Amino acid sequence: MRLHPRTQAAKESIFPKMSALAQRLGAVNLGQGFPSTPPPPFLLEAVRRALGRYDQYAPPAGLPALREALAEEFGEEPEAVVVTSGATEALYVLLQSLVGPGEEVVVLEPFFDVYLPDAFLAGAEARLVRLPLGEGGFRLDLGALERAITQRTRLLLLNTPMNPTGLVLGEAELQRIADLARRHDLFLVSDEVYDELYYGERPRRLREFAPERTFTVGSAGKRLEATGYRVGWIVGPKAFMPTIAGMRQWTSFSAPSPLQAGVAEALRVARREGFYEALRESYRKRRDLLAGGLRALGLRVYIPEGTYFLMAELPGWDAFRLVERARVALIPASAFYREDPPEGLFRFAFCKKEEELELALKGLAPVVNSLA
Amino acid sequence: MRLHPRTQAAKESIFPKMSALAQRLGAVNLGQGFPSTPPPPFLLEAVRRALGRYDQYAPPAGLPALREALAEEFGEEPEAVVVTSGATEALYVLLQSLVGPGEEVVVLEPFFDVYLPDAFLAGAEARLVRLPLGEGGFRLDLGALERAITQRTRLLLLNTPMNPTGLVLGEAELQRIADLARRHDLFLVSDEVYDELYYGERPRRLREFAPERTFTVGSAGKRLEATGYRVGWIVGPKAFMPTIAGMRQWTSFSAPSPLQAGVAEALRVARREGFYEALRESYRKRRDLLAGGLRALGLRVYIPEGTYFLMAELPGWDAFRLVERARVALIPASAFYREDPPEGLFRFAFCKKEEELELALKGLAPVVNSLA
Ligand SMILES: Cc1ncc(COP(=O)(O)O)c(C=O)c1O
Ligand SMILES: Cc1ncc(COP(=O)(O)O)c(C=O)c1O
Repeated sequence: MRLHPRTQAAKESIFPKMSALAQRLGAVNLGQGFPSTPPPPFLLEAVRRALGRYDQYAPPAGLPALREALAEEFGEEPEAVVVTSGATEALYVLLQSLVGPGEEVVVLEPFFDVYLPDAFLAGAEARLVRLPLGEGGFRLDLGALERAITQRTRLLLLNTPMNPTGLVLGEAELQRIADLARRHDLFLVSDEVYDELYYGERPRRLREFAPERTFTVGSAGKRLEATGYRVGWIVGPKAFMPTIAGMRQWTSFSAPSPLQAGVAEALRVARREGFYEALRESYRKRRDLLAGGLRALGLRVYIPEGTYFLMAELPGWDAFRLVERARVALIPASAFYREDPPEGLFRFAFCKKEEELELALKGLAPVVNSLA
Repeated sequence: MRLHPRTQAAKESIFPKMSALAQRLGAVNLGQGFPSTPPPPFLLEAVRRALGRYDQYAPPAGLPALREALAEEFGEEPEAVVVTSGATEALYVLLQSLVGPGEEVVVLEPFFDVYLPDAFLAGAEARLVRLPLGEGGFRLDLGALERAITQRTRLLLLNTPMNPTGLVLGEAELQRIADLARRHDLFLVSDEVYDELYYGERPRRLREFAPERTFTVGSAGKRLEATGYRVGWIVGPKAFMPTIAGMRQWTSFSAPSPLQAGVAEALRVARREGFYEALRESYRKRRDLLAGGLRALGLRVYIPEGTYFLMAELPGWDAFRLVERARVALIPASAFYREDPPEGLFRFAFCKKEEELELALKGLAPVVNSLA
């Protein structure tokens, strides 16, 4: 008796592993991307009220109230929305629905870690387009993106604001990606779980430029600081969505009902009460605190335009020695590359309390000095 | 642009469709298997307390507290348990992990509707073994089960207590199935989401007879009357479970944290306070009320030994005409058969209030009489 070879995809991801290690060693966890503070009270209250009222199966496509709230946000009809058990399920189901053996998906590298197993489990090949890293940070090379497209390509999988690089695609780039997709008749999956976390102008969405072929992925976990609630969504071309809902019913049937009901209410409150503006402000402060502190230690830091991650260089260190010596858990760049990751590059999550960021800086100081 | 052919699997399931229709027509919904009363207060309270404390990602294998509570119930170590987003995800992940193209899964027919798409999406062939239906009800033909096994068979997928037949496998049957699996070197998946819903002696578990090869699937939704909470589990051979957890991280990453925490606590309370005994009593009463009422109308009824479903014959009717004429939503046997379902056979869910069962009987009376 042995498991099916596709279970090669099962290798333990470094994110929960680092979290467990951080906990065991009492280290500051700047590894996995979840906030160390509770979700906003209006979300907790809304979920409390939903308990005892929304306890049984929701339809696979989502609770009507949540589909409506999302449709309003996106300026679409509820039929364009399918609710999922987190963005993770959204991505899994989209890859299963869009590609198969003999077909290719273009993925930017560094990438969020689920994209490769999702492509593999769909039987498709991931073609990587590496973002060049210069003094100014990461940059999308649109020429390289176009050259990666072959006869077998069916899908471009993008992520903006981008984990781990913090890159936010601008209007001209979105327009060129849309044109490219139209010219080569490709689907677009745009992972926008950090859509409310940007530090410049409000970015436009890829779907505005190619509504007929774009599936936008989002997550209440990221927007509302509740990564454990497992409520995500797909907004896509209406004609495809009944099929997408039909596919997601087999993976987890439906997302958790009381959490869907709570999120439906909380999305409206968040918008009305300026929650996202306040969140951005608070993250901008933490970003600047961490980036400033790391620079003061003499490290090279790449300032993100969005997300709650930044990347910085600690040449000569590896993540396991760092967590032991500095008591700071970080994710090494290797988690985001298939091969040849840049040396000594780490991702820092700054969705943590200011005290934790300060503690991390304090832990890193002697380690960095011992290097010099 | 077209979706991948595997999205054939996406066809809308009749369960949510019937629920929506029942709601629109104001019909009594004896279709989809969810209770029409809220979950027990001790579960609601436990979840309320978890909000604000368990809001971020749980490990893919599950919150330690829940794995421990389940390990205790099953007399296993926590490492033998992986928590999933409902039994639906458990079954999906198991099929993906155990079988692939060129391989076969043996499934009893009538079957719970996810088994066939799960096998199809894993690329495997489902071989159906039909349960003969006689005067005394459905019966497992062990000879037919053995004859269905070929060189390509890798897995027997069983369900006890069984939806929709209400069959509960006895010790002698479990023993013979275990022997068969050992002889042919097969995995066993035992879907036991109704493990606490039996009306005779407490049944034994298939895993007791073949612990080295059996994956037991369960659901807090069914046990604790909260089908919308999406907390399920797999208990299996310890050596395989890290890989199973590694696979389930790609489908939904982890089950909802506050609901996992609430379920962990509620499982202990349920056991301690005799909740399951009370639940069985209450379902036995409702089963007898419904079965008695249907028999009084002159229908042939098959009395279940477990689950909250019963099957009965309404010759000459179809489900859509019934919901319109009698204002009662039922699931036709065709939902549980690949082809040639028994004529005029329906599944009735009796996880509904007594008033609803009475209302259903009242709605059916004129319809049945118009037949005679
Ligand atoms: C880019 C990106 N996409 C998707 C996800 C998964 O989101 P969810 O927690 O909603 O499954 C993450 C989580 O870190 C992410 O960074
Ligand atoms: C036999 C059987 N297995 C699995 C399930 C799915 O359970 P869950 O709601 O935990 O996904 C059901 C639901 O009706 C069922 O009847």
